[in-house]
Amino acid sequence: MNVVVWNENRHEKLNPKVTEIYPEGIHGAIASFLREEGHDVTTATLDQPEHGLTEQVLAEADVLLWWGHLAHDEVDETIVERVHQRVLDGMGLIVLHSGHFSKIFKKLMGTGCDLKWREANDRERLWVVDPSHPIVAGLDTYFELEKEEMYGEHFDIPAPDELVFISWFEGGEVFRSGATYRRGKGKVFYFRPGHETYPTYHHEQIQKVIKNAVAWTASLGAPTHQYGNVEPIEEISVKE
Amino acid sequence: MNVVVWNENRHEKLNPKVTEIYPEGIHGAIASFLREEGHDVTTATLDQPEHGLTEQVLAEADVLLWWGHLAHDEVDETIVERVHQRVLDGMGLIVLHSGHFSKIFKKLMGTGCDLKWREANDRERLWVVDPSHPIVAGLDTYFELEKEEMYGEHFDIPAPDELVFISWFEGGEVFRSGATYRRGKGKVFYFRPGHETYPTYHHEQIQKVIKNAVAWTASLGAPTHQYGNVEPIEEISVKE
Amino acid sequence: MNVVVWNENRHEKLNPKVTEIYPEGIHGAIASFLREEGHDVTTATLDQPEHGLTEQVLAEADVLLWWGHLAHDEVDETIVERVHQRVLDGMGLIVLHSGHFSKIFKKLMGTGCDLKWREANDRERLWVVDPSHPIVAGLDTYFELEKEEMYGEHFDIPAPDELVFISWFEGGEVFRSGATYRRGKGKVFYFRPGHETYPTYHHEQIQKVIKNAVAWTASLGAPTHQYGNVEPIEEISVKE
Amino acid sequence: MNVVVWNENRHEKLNPKVTEIYPEGIHGAIASFLREEGHDVTTATLDQPEHGLTEQVLAEADVLLWWGHLAHDEVDETIVERVHQRVLDGMGLIVLHSGHFSKIFKKLMGTGCDLKWREANDRERLWVVDPSHPIVAGLDTYFELEKEEMYGEHFDIPAPDELVFISWFEGGEVFRSGATYRRGKGKVFYFRPGHETYPTYHHEQIQKVIKNAVAWTASLGAPTHQYGNVEPIEEISVKE
Repeated sequence: MNVVVWNENRHEKLNPKVTEIYPEGIHGAIASFLREEGHDVTTATLDQPEHGLTEQVLAEADVLLWWGHLAHDEVDETIVERVHQRVLDGMGLIVLHSGHFSKIFKKLMGTGCDLKWREANDRERLWVVDPSHPIVAGLDTYFELEKEEMYGEHFDIPAPDELVFISWFEGGEVFRSGATYRRGKGKVFYFRPGHETYPTYHHEQIQKVIKNAVAWTASLGAPTHQYGNVEPIEEISVKE
Repeated sequence: MNVVVWNENRHEKLNPKVTEIYPEGIHGAIASFLREEGHDVTTATLDQPEHGLTEQVLAEADVLLWWGHLAHDEVDETIVERVHQRVLDGMGLIVLHSGHFSKIFKKLMGTGCDLKWREANDRERLWVVDPSHPIVAGLDTYFELEKEEMYGEHFDIPAPDELVFISWFEGGEVFRSGATYRRGKGKVFYFRPGHETYPTYHHEQIQKVIKNAVAWTASLGAPTHQYGNVEPIEEISVKE
Repeated sequence: MNVVVWNENRHEKLNPKVTEIYPEGIHGAIASFLREEGHDVTTATLDQPEHGLTEQVLAEADVLLWWGHLAHDEVDETIVERVHQRVLDGMGLIVLHSGHFSKIFKKLMGTGCDLKWREANDRERLWVVDPSHPIVAGLDTYFELEKEEMYGEHFDIPAPDELVFISWFEGGEVFRSGATYRRGKGKVFYFRPGHETYPTYHHEQIQKVIKNAVAWTASLGAPTHQYGNVEPIEEISVKE
Repeated sequence: MNVVVWNENRHEKLNPKVTEIYPEGIHGAIASFLREEGHDVTTATLDQPEHGLTEQVLAEADVLLWWGHLAHDEVDETIVERVHQRVLDGMGLIVLHSGHFSKIFKKLMGTGCDLKWREANDRERLWVVDPSHPIVAGLDTYFELEKEEMYGEHFDIPAPDELVFISWFEGGEVFRSGATYRRGKGKVFYFRPGHETYPTYHHEQIQKVIKNAVAWTASLGAPTHQYGNVEPIEEISVKE
């Protein structure tokens, strides 16, 4: 399977703490553990030509992962349209953490995607609320991140097609942390954790969820629809 | 309740057949039967300044109905943003027939919203599939339109929050004809029938559905959320 | 509107603390604040003949509220069937707190309805996750109960048709606290809070939610369906 | 994967036409094409001891398929309970055609599961309405059965978690023909076609759907939840 990990890659250049945690960048860390699954994994970043997301890269991608935060506005509308169309055509998309405010996620959701947040080393506990879902395979009833940025409700998204995780935060909030959506022939998974100053993507359960999500979002051969003006299949009794 | 009926109002100027069926325009016909419910109903059309949808008009609207077809592209992006924001803030929105391709519907859905279609006097039969829904109050198990334009699946929308009607067409197709969505604090109802060359909006059951939908989409006093950076409610044990 | 508040009414007889909080019983407290809405409210309890739920009582009920805990097994199967059928026929049903394990709720859900629990004076905070829903009209972004029994995920229910509240608990858990379901022509609302040793039903926001829920679950005139063997509506070309 | 095909196997004994179409029984026909997928497929029928569904058979089954019609009432409650519990524990269940009225399906749904029907050689056309779903992999935008029994709305089921197919019938009806549900850790798929007097299970697309559904309903390693009384994870400030 072809997997592309996209990262804004700006915190890595600005904040030594982030570089310390992710010496190869957040994209490098994610790509690394996804390669363990035998996928063909490449990375792409904001400052590359076309943000690294050329027509060809996207055409060949089965799943795209998206991490962005500081520079959502710098993402070119043309590339957003291109990614959007590929999702509708069947490419899986996994939107991570602060990607909730990315142009592509907002475009797919149709809502404001706003939320509450706080950087205060909250303990986060992710509870599984849909044990039948392939994305939670191999997990326990919950798992814990010792410190994370808090995201709190209300999270301004459409009601998820499937709600997979709900987070508990030490400071008093809850959050719909794992949510799936179908858009056209494509499947979308939003997964909350992953603030850049915490080693979240080195966490074993986080890696398991993302691996499961890559398998789940990948398309399996969707029908090709004809749209537009069509002839009747059955005879119509003409009425005046 | 303040209800605004928006219509592109172009077919009415170009096609005498449409004017014959709807001498006051499609908006006039819809406004007329909604007034029977005791609502304060006004109309707005594309060629008015700001398409008749000023900040004030929208701020006071509880529910907006939308009919468009020929001139989706002429709707100003600023107005689309304005309507979008009002839906997220709680205004109800009812999108009618060819409005499936309007900018506002596509923006709220996040998908292509394409479909199959045919103008061949198909008989259409709308089957109630959610009898618990207030939108079907007073209907029978199905109702019929002798002649309508056909819209067929696949209809490229997100899975509806609630699927209320499925249409059967004489020529061999089916369609998800009544579908609800929540976006932010607002409720959205898409209702399929209403091609301009048929007297669909004079049909008793169609009027009943639209009346019910106006009542259902209206907001009832949603919470005001705080978004952004917040203090913890509970004490957090600081971790290094 | 005719509203029936059903209560097992056993804790009230066994535990003076409960009687102190609810001198008229939990049913009496709930009936009292629902009468403020102008409804015609009656009560029914387990130890009455037919548990107070005769054919006539149910036939006339628009909405039934259900509180049970100690004696789920004593509820007669005939009465469970009767309530079940009335829900499918359009009566609203509000299941409160430990009613999650009642026969009627399990029958409507089709799952085990199990959960984690703890009586330890946890603070509970109910977050609104669907601000467009009539059940949250007039609430703020969350409200708090100083002390309640904890219910924690995984809650073994079908994915709610609409998820309205998520609870945060001081001891580290989350819970889907307000959930709606449609069954036949009837609407069902499960609402978590309400342990008998806390004054939960005297809490202003709790009362508001239950009042809203009564209005929301009431039926509005659903279609009467014909089931069974039917003649074709359209002509069928006979095939050998 | 271990797959068990359960069939009532009564029409096969009573109606020579059925035996002609399915010389090995409906269960034999289904088992045969599922073996092409490399699964370990066994069959079980009503008249076997414990209906062929012993504790061990179910414990080892990843997916169970269910075809019944004439003798729903003869299925023992103990076996229904056993199958129900295995679904909640993660076994996939595929309910076929007249299985809509089986005890196990009604128990999982919580509704009456009634519908309209007609045996009149209607042409049936199954339209794909969720092209992102693995169950439709490899299909076209619709497929057709020249002759089938008609099932028509209203179909008294809960709103499906995912609606995959909608059927068009020549005689004027529509039907939600492919619907998924999650119950506990288990996944359920209802698939409409398959009247015993038509060669439906020999149809290539029908076989493809059932093969896809077997893969989709199989569990992938769900979490083991603890239910009941639990200690707090976080410290609780005791309140009087």
